[in-house]
Amino acid sequence: MDRNLLLTIAFDGSFYHGYQIQQNAVTVQEVFQNALYKIIGNNADVKGCSRTDSGVHANMYCISIKTDRDIPTKRLVGALNHFLPDSIAALSCKEVDMDFHARYSCVKKQYIYRIWNREEKNPFLANRALHYWYKMDEKMLNEEAKAFIGTHDFTSFCTRDERVLLDATRTMFDCSVKRVGDEVIFSVCGDGFLYNMVRIMVGTLLKIQQGKIERGQIPFIIKAKDRMEAGPKAPPQGLYLDKVFY
Amino acid sequence: MDRNLLLTIAFDGSFYHGYQIQQNAVTVQEVFQNALYKIIGNNADVKGCSRTDSGVHANMYCISIKTDRDIPTKRLVGALNHFLPDSIAALSCKEVDMDFHARYSCVKKQYIYRIWNREEKNPFLANRALHYWYKMDEKMLNEEAKAFIGTHDFTSFCTRDERVLLDATRTMFDCSVKRVGDEVIFSVCGDGFLYNMVRIMVGTLLKIQQGKIERGQIPFIIKAKDRMEAGPKAPPQGLYLDKVFY
Repeated sequence: MDRNLLLTIAFDGSFYHGYQIQQNAVTVQEVFQNALYKIIGNNADVKGCSRTDSGVHANMYCISIKTDRDIPTKRLVGALNHFLPDSIAALSCKEVDMDFHARYSCVKKQYIYRIWNREEKNPFLANRALHYWYKMDEKMLNEEAKAFIGTHDFTSFCTRDERVLLDATRTMFDCSVKRVGDEVIFSVCGDGFLYNMVRIMVGTLLKIQQGKIERGQIPFIIKAKDRMEAGPKAPPQGLYLDKVFY
Repeated sequence: MDRNLLLTIAFDGSFYHGYQIQQNAVTVQEVFQNALYKIIGNNADVKGCSRTDSGVHANMYCISIKTDRDIPTKRLVGALNHFLPDSIAALSCKEVDMDFHARYSCVKKQYIYRIWNREEKNPFLANRALHYWYKMDEKMLNEEAKAFIGTHDFTSFCTRDERVLLDATRTMFDCSVKRVGDEVIFSVCGDGFLYNMVRIMVGTLLKIQQGKIERGQIPFIIKAKDRMEAGPKAPPQGLYLDKVFY
């Protein structure tokens, strides 16, 4: 295979059990590959930029594709949109070096977490945001969230699973909480993220909002390197992979 | 029945064959009434503010309910949200005079029509906006749309159906087209609307955008009182009942 393509897509994760292919569950990868193979055949090496949990969305998700087929990149985007369901959109495609890898070449990712913060529910955000009834103090939460910035061992903010963690050190370049109308949006940008890390960060901030974890505690929770010290993981529907940087 | 309540709801119309109850199709009214009857029993007189087409949404839809039950209005909203699916939200409720009627007491309604105007599709707006690939000229369309303002016979902008039209004269108080990021939003506020009227207004503006109807023609299309002179009706998924005034 002599070509390597970087393709960006966006997807509504409500319909999928995450990105990564699984037995007995519909995933973004499976649906994407089925569309891709109709266009360029299945002699292709497809790599996604990360796993995502069931119900998690992507405003931007990157896939690298090694292939022999010389279809123009612009035409590939159009053909993919023809075969993909409405819940997955192909956004752009460009040629990249053969050693480029959607996951390993990534230097930075940004996630956002959307919270619908109004007593009345929003029927248009049912699977697109967390609904939090009580008025949130986004300025206070923004100050608290700054404690995530920097290079830390984030063991306290990681669900341990079968994937053994060799090193839980990650660098967060920025982290903030802001209000846009009735939505409170948590945003974090870092060089890498552990399993469930963003959802546990948000779950911890929600505990601070509720007064169940005290203000100023995040640095100590980080230092503890103990999952039990942090809050629970927030539900998946508010989480969006927002940007991927190479 | 000695109480009359004005309830406002919002709904994602993707899941429903319009508001008005039908045989063999799931409608907002049926689902709403099922929830309501669990709370106050079925000895209630329920009136919606308008019909809506299959797939059309509501940011605000009003329902008047005559009942004997003395449940507090605030509690009714909470109970409804408990029994309603995520796609329908109860927003507010207040007591009104016994002669109030959600449909006949209405003095003004506002609709919006959302168009996702970018070449790439948006997986989060699949059933929530019309996708229009080519760059739209919202300033030009806004000027054209002003021709709808005023009191006119809108026969040209109405699908004739079994409901005989006695008088197609309606007054539009405001009408505009604006861009918000990658969305173009048509907005119209009037004292009443004919069947498919907003969708035909939008379909006509899209024909002007495409150069298939000339600029400046809307006053002549109105004067013709001929459905064949206007554009086709735009698809339902971009349409939202936005506000209802009493």
